[in-house]
Amino acid sequence: MTVGIRRLEDGDWDTVWPFFDAIVQAGETYAYPTDLTSDTARALWVPGPPSETVVGVLDGGIVGTATWGPNRPGRGSHVATASFMVDPAAAGHGIGRALGEHVVAAARSAGYRGIQFNAVVETNTAAVRLWQKLGFEIIGTVPGAFESASHGFVGLHVLYLPLTPHQP
Amino acid sequence: MTVGIRRLEDGDWDTVWPFFDAIVQAGETYAYPTDLTSDTARALWVPGPPSETVVGVLDGGIVGTATWGPNRPGRGSHVATASFMVDPAAAGHGIGRALGEHVVAAARSAGYRGIQFNAVVETNTAAVRLWQKLGFEIIGTVPGAFESASHGFVGLHVLYLPLTPHQP
Repeated sequence: MTVGIRRLEDGDWDTVWPFFDAIVQAGETYAYPTDLTSDTARALWVPGPPSETVVGVLDGGIVGTATWGPNRPGRGSHVATASFMVDPAAAGHGIGRALGEHVVAAARSAGYRGIQFNAVVETNTAAVRLWQKLGFEIIGTVPGAFESASHGFVGLHVLYLPLTPHQP
Repeated sequence: MTVGIRRLEDGDWDTVWPFFDAIVQAGETYAYPTDLTSDTARALWVPGPPSETVVGVLDGGIVGTATWGPNRPGRGSHVATASFMVDPAAAGHGIGRALGEHVVAAARSAGYRGIQFNAVVETNTAAVRLWQKLGFEIIGTVPGAFESASHGFVGLHVLYLPLTPHQP
């Protein structure tokens, strides 16, 4: 099976939205507005430049997506952030890893000094392990900051990957 | 001298904006868009419910402001966040502490489980010490995530104050 990453194009969103919505509704990984519609979700996920939104393609079908860009404006804009969604039906094919590797390479290439994930749910252990394999470190964990549908109040990790040596 | 805290009202912004702008321009504490205008700053700082924006008043004059509300929507909306500005000309009168105590009391009263500060510049030691006095703990520090005008790349602390016992 062939995994590819390409930019999200006009017309892709209708393929993304069903698994995006299912992932948010499952209540295990994302703190999004409870009244999210396809349009409001698209506005959040596809904000346009300087952010970039890509899709992960498996054998021709879109089964994942990532969006990334500066984590903060102005004096914080040298650190990137990113978010990821993979269709649960396509788990185990390395889509998340391919999306993560794309974002790390693209952020490095664009000159960012690091990538920060602001809110990785601690019970989302598959994601935490993947990011650690890609070199991310857990900077800290805000206790009980996410209300998981199945686990109740669980922590949100802040993760960070430096892309250039930290200048002291 | 008497310090008071009250809600920001129509007409207050024109008093807030000069010191707000001076603080952002100084480049030591906030990562805001570099092209911030009075109108775009007001939209960020006074977003309306469920957030609340207050001012700190010293002898009848507005010398500080705070804005607070849910840190995330949906499954993260039980944790509050807040931001603070104090006119440097009014430093040393306890305005920051009064604003901080107001937000902590208001968030506790509103039933939030904790308060998270997402990005406290590590070289802003007066603020860090104040928040620690109010009970906040440093959860972690993202290295080099803020480009300080005078110190170069410095860390951004994530701070947290639990408002109710964490339910394991």
